[in-house]
Amino acid sequence: MSRFLGQHILSVNQFDLDAITQIFNVADTMQVYTRREKRTTVLDGAILGNLFFEPSTRTRVSFGTAFNLLGGEVRETVGVSNSALAKGESLYDTARVLSGYSDVIAMRHPDAGSVEEFSKGSRVPCINGGDGPNEHPTQALLDLYTIKKELAFHQRDINGLHIAMVGDLKFGRTVHSLAKLLCLFKDIRFTFIAPTELGMPDYILDTITNAGHQFNIQDSLDGQFDADICYQTRVQEERFPSKEEANKYRGKFRLNQAIYTQHFKSKTVIMHPLPRDSRADANELDNDLNQNPNLAIFRQTDNGVLVRMALFALALGVENKVKDYERAVPWHYHSN
Amino acid sequence: MSRFLGQHILSVNQFDLDAITQIFNVADTMQVYTRREKRTTVLDGAILGNLFFEPSTRTRVSFGTAFNLLGGEVRETVGVSNSALAKGESLYDTARVLSGYSDVIAMRHPDAGSVEEFSKGSRVPCINGGDGPNEHPTQALLDLYTIKKELAFHQRDINGLHIAMVGDLKFGRTVHSLAKLLCLFKDIRFTFIAPTELGMPDYILDTITNAGHQFNIQDSLDGQFDADICYQTRVQEERFPSKEEANKYRGKFRLNQAIYTQHFKSKTVIMHPLPRDSRADANELDNDLNQNPNLAIFRQTDNGVLVRMALFALALGVENKVKDYERAVPWHYHSN
Amino acid sequence: MSRFLGQHILSVNQFDLDAITQIFNVADTMQVYTRREKRTTVLDGAILGNLFFEPSTRTRVSFGTAFNLLGGEVRETVGVSNSALAKGESLYDTARVLSGYSDVIAMRHPDAGSVEEFSKGSRVPCINGGDGPNEHPTQALLDLYTIKKELAFHQRDINGLHIAMVGDLKFGRTVHSLAKLLCLFKDIRFTFIAPTELGMPDYILDTITNAGHQFNIQDSLDGQFDADICYQTRVQEERFPSKEEANKYRGKFRLNQAIYTQHFKSKTVIMHPLPRDSRADANELDNDLNQNPNLAIFRQTDNGVLVRMALFALALGVENKVKDYERAVPWHYHSN
Repeated sequence: MSRFLGQHILSVNQFDLDAITQIFNVADTMQVYTRREKRTTVLDGAILGNLFFEPSTRTRVSFGTAFNLLGGEVRETVGVSNSALAKGESLYDTARVLSGYSDVIAMRHPDAGSVEEFSKGSRVPCINGGDGPNEHPTQALLDLYTIKKELAFHQRDINGLHIAMVGDLKFGRTVHSLAKLLCLFKDIRFTFIAPTELGMPDYILDTITNAGHQFNIQDSLDGQFDADICYQTRVQEERFPSKEEANKYRGKFRLNQAIYTQHFKSKTVIMHPLPRDSRADANELDNDLNQNPNLAIFRQTDNGVLVRMALFALALGVENKVKDYERAVPWHYHSN
Repeated sequence: MSRFLGQHILSVNQFDLDAITQIFNVADTMQVYTRREKRTTVLDGAILGNLFFEPSTRTRVSFGTAFNLLGGEVRETVGVSNSALAKGESLYDTARVLSGYSDVIAMRHPDAGSVEEFSKGSRVPCINGGDGPNEHPTQALLDLYTIKKELAFHQRDINGLHIAMVGDLKFGRTVHSLAKLLCLFKDIRFTFIAPTELGMPDYILDTITNAGHQFNIQDSLDGQFDADICYQTRVQEERFPSKEEANKYRGKFRLNQAIYTQHFKSKTVIMHPLPRDSRADANELDNDLNQNPNLAIFRQTDNGVLVRMALFALALGVENKVKDYERAVPWHYHSN
Repeated sequence: MSRFLGQHILSVNQFDLDAITQIFNVADTMQVYTRREKRTTVLDGAILGNLFFEPSTRTRVSFGTAFNLLGGEVRETVGVSNSALAKGESLYDTARVLSGYSDVIAMRHPDAGSVEEFSKGSRVPCINGGDGPNEHPTQALLDLYTIKKELAFHQRDINGLHIAMVGDLKFGRTVHSLAKLLCLFKDIRFTFIAPTELGMPDYILDTITNAGHQFNIQDSLDGQFDADICYQTRVQEERFPSKEEANKYRGKFRLNQAIYTQHFKSKTVIMHPLPRDSRADANELDNDLNQNPNLAIFRQTDNGVLVRMALFALALGVENKVKDYERAVPWHYHSN
């Protein structure tokens, strides 16, 4: 029985290296199901309450698909207007009620701390699918899992990694969480490339230093980087006081094939939390990188299903039984 | 084969004591599945059309979960804007079409009588999940089922019950329906505590008198009540002409631990249709009651799943076959 | 292995007579499941991404139900506001990501060509569920399948058919697609009854002529028609520049029982893409036709499930295995 049985997943702060190893080991065993080589019904009859009080198609569907691939059912709620919350119901009450309708809950909410508050009323494990500016731990886990797999492809492990993080590092929830998780490993080098006003917060820099790792700070994409990973982030317009303010930074930390070739080594893996803005004036991660085999952004979202399957299996204590409920897959087509 | 096979559930008026006994007997057999002691797939392949033309997270998810726990699938529609109704389609046409996509339908709609109108076009049984100010029969059933179970815990049955109903009794659909159902039993005493303007309607009072039961009316929460049940209702703001009008009544029929101790006996069970408004100025049912073991509000919503499972099983004629499709549950964690 | 394995269904233009025969033959085998005589779980574990960036309850639920009836699960997205598309994500990116969460995708979108653009990024087969004014191939297939079945009931086949198409033939996507498909058969006679301004476009008339079929054009519902099928279309208000412009044409091509008896022979089958507008001033297809056994409009929507099941089975290559995963259905009630 694992330490995750019946537990909430609220923050990356609750993970140590052993926890991460456990999650990733279980995630590895899920690939046979995401590739449709086999089918498992270990969670037949279990119900995921997929509560997206703030919409997010990608994350919502990824959680739902992960649960379906384990054989479970998904009951979904999207948007706060559909909810009793709009009538003044407390998160505690909502949690008490809705947790009676499911075996595990995945929840996104616009307010920081809301998922933790909800979890106090919940009678089943809750997984934070993003609570506003605060935490999105499954994104951090899938990012780290992607790094592990991409490095493994080059016969490397995470210890000794050099990662460049580019763009808006102040408001980018994902880079904060990923940096914290990387601090659990050994000899990590960080290069932070951001405008001064949007730099990595001091508390993250302190965490890095205290954990014995190194970082460099640059205010533009200049020079040569021997980074193993280039983690690009979106200029999140909604974090700025105005569209004008946001536009000032647009395109300044752009990555396209020519810029990539100029600044990075040929094996540098490109990551991004998605969605990327593909409008003409966005210029955050150009489409001409789509043919670059090091562009790992869609492998990231694929990995999200594996990581979420692992978390569900661990929270419900079936991580060692998944295989017992395996069966053959009769359909012929799958491209994954 | 039960009388419910293929029948619509539209109103509490269609139930007699025998019908209620049948439903509750089936509901009792469902507890093994809601507690995840066993899994059943008796409705594998059946589809619930869960049509919420008016949003209601709690009721919608409860119906969906109930159907999933019987092994069925759920196809869901939320909000009238998503619907052909917005293009002038009649409820008859909508029902003819959507009933071809499912085996049973649960429906909520803002207009009184709409579910009955819909049911005339439907080729499958329809369960009214609330048609505006009119009816919400599954809420009444789960309330009554909760009363039965709470009393059974104290070695009592419903006959001879004393129930206090508090708050807005004029617009409170749930207290009207519950009062009607209680009239099927023997020697019920009702105490209605409401402002004069929001008192229980005369036709309910007549029903009670005609059925040989007794009632008292009070315009405030004064004195000692030996009630077995205190059924508190929400001041439903949207029923008032204005927010100001609603606010006049807010807090006047508040219940908290101190008020409970002052006015009720120590075993009085507290019920509420939920959601309760937990905002500071709402004061309908305070959070300090959450530790009171007689607060049954979350047992009510849990019971809703049992009652809805029973209705689905009866409408589709599988109430005696549920056990034949039973299997073991492999996952370890459930708190219910 | 059929030609449909792993293929997108984007347009009626991709079908020849052989393709249609294959689809309809598979659709015929699905009736045992839609009638609940048997259950199949051939697609157990497969996931449909049901992406309705433009809402359409009927089409969305029909796709979902079809997939459930094959044993698969449905992950649904409704409305563009819920989507990363709103943050500037390209359809290519959305497709790459969401196709990693499913085995097949059904998609509706308000923009012409959007589903084809999406399909270029998708790693799984995409079925066009309507891309604005452009195409809605599954509607055309279910219309044609309905014609085939209705004629078969009268011991006829499609060759030699006389079809009248009535109403708004300029903006009516369904009549264009159906006309194209009918051109694949022999000796079809078309009668187009529409105001001059809303007549069938020239390119469709050319297609008909080039395929060796005949057509007549009338600007009102005058005279006697020996049509086998009368396909009525809705005055689609949203296609007109203003409500006033739309109202000019309302009611001019109305069909009710008296008009039907006056103009059509007693076996003429009445079809309509639905929804029909049942408001008093709409007058497109009156409710007094509901008792007419030739009114096939609800058989059309029922047939939609059969056709969509066939497309899913073909796209995933299980069309010959459906029966191997058959089981008995334990519930008693179904009216289909």
